[in-house]
Amino acid sequence: MKVTVVGANGQIGKQLVRLLKESGHTPIAMVRKQEQVDEFSKEGIESVLADLEGPVSDLVEAFKGSEAIVFTAGSGGSTGLDKTLLIDLDGAVKTIEAAEHIGVKRYVMVSALQANNREKWNKDIRPYYVAKHYADEMLIASDLDYTIVRPGGLLNESGTGKVKVAENVEKGSIPREDVAKVLLEILDAANTYRKSFDLISGEKPIKEEIDKL
Amino acid sequence: MKVTVVGANGQIGKQLVRLLKESGHTPIAMVRKQEQVDEFSKEGIESVLADLEGPVSDLVEAFKGSEAIVFTAGSGGSTGLDKTLLIDLDGAVKTIEAAEHIGVKRYVMVSALQANNREKWNKDIRPYYVAKHYADEMLIASDLDYTIVRPGGLLNESGTGKVKVAENVEKGSIPREDVAKVLLEILDAANTYRKSFDLISGEKPIKEEIDKL
Repeated sequence: MKVTVVGANGQIGKQLVRLLKESGHTPIAMVRKQEQVDEFSKEGIESVLADLEGPVSDLVEAFKGSEAIVFTAGSGGSTGLDKTLLIDLDGAVKTIEAAEHIGVKRYVMVSALQANNREKWNKDIRPYYVAKHYADEMLIASDLDYTIVRPGGLLNESGTGKVKVAENVEKGSIPREDVAKVLLEILDAANTYRKSFDLISGEKPIKEEIDKL
Repeated sequence: MKVTVVGANGQIGKQLVRLLKESGHTPIAMVRKQEQVDEFSKEGIESVLADLEGPVSDLVEAFKGSEAIVFTAGSGGSTGLDKTLLIDLDGAVKTIEAAEHIGVKRYVMVSALQANNREKWNKDIRPYYVAKHYADEMLIASDLDYTIVRPGGLLNESGTGKVKVAENVEKGSIPREDVAKVLLEILDAANTYRKSFDLISGEKPIKEEIDKL
């Protein structure tokens, strides 16, 4: 499947792009800078330049030929809340609009644990949750075949391949590598269409947890 | 009609509350501070204490007995973007949820000129437009009898009673007093239900412009 990864240069994005390639998909790494294009190119990975702060028409152009979009971009902890609004919320919604416009039905969103549950938002980063929550809400309101994945605290350690997937998990963490593996697993799993779930490390193999959805 | 004005202590809110009272409605001024309650009380205006950063259940409590909600709150220019996210976006959506929960169908939102039109957002305050835009989108996705009023640049001068109302006005300004008068005029105008419009100063009397919607 030809899959555009939005935020391919991010820590989850990079791992996902490689996993996609290894598993026979055709990843398109959407990135903002020419140097990132060059880096992916060295690995034999196709990429496309586009900016989430640019017009929707640029994203439509970038998505041409894709069969699925995975949104794993994030403004990151080091930028201001202007970027939280412009990237995590409006940028995400622009990609939804572009996908709808061009008829790419399959859309996977990387959200955040409990982003759907206002009462559980960590006080220190509530504004970030607001942005993620409404991006998710706009996706739910779309007619795309979406899956919203809400991982817990992201770790850089190696994945275990064992996770817990549930509608409502209060807290937990998960290696980024396992998040990337879950994204790969659900990509063409029709049983995950129009569903959202929390995701943390757990006891069960990824496929088993996904199959039960 | 019993009308809760959210953000009653704001510059438009204060004028609207008085206009409502003068015209035979029963305004409820929703405010955040006891001293504001006392001030409205001196004018014989009922008020209710509630915080847009609090739980939806507090807003449900505050809206009890109301027949309409007017949202004219704003985080203001002097606060940070955290408040833009928490008040202008999430706070607004909480009032929508509270209105839905309690069955208050009529809901009037004060938005901003061209908030529906990403390409026209003033670059300097784009994050603010993002917040307003998605609050409006969530209202449109609700099943409330909403009207979204998108005024141009707000002036403190006296109103003229002459306005221009249209789906798409590129630029313009309007005295806050005229915005308040428009809010009063549309409150029980069923022809404005589930509609949104830009609003600036113009040539026509308010009622004439509203009637044509």
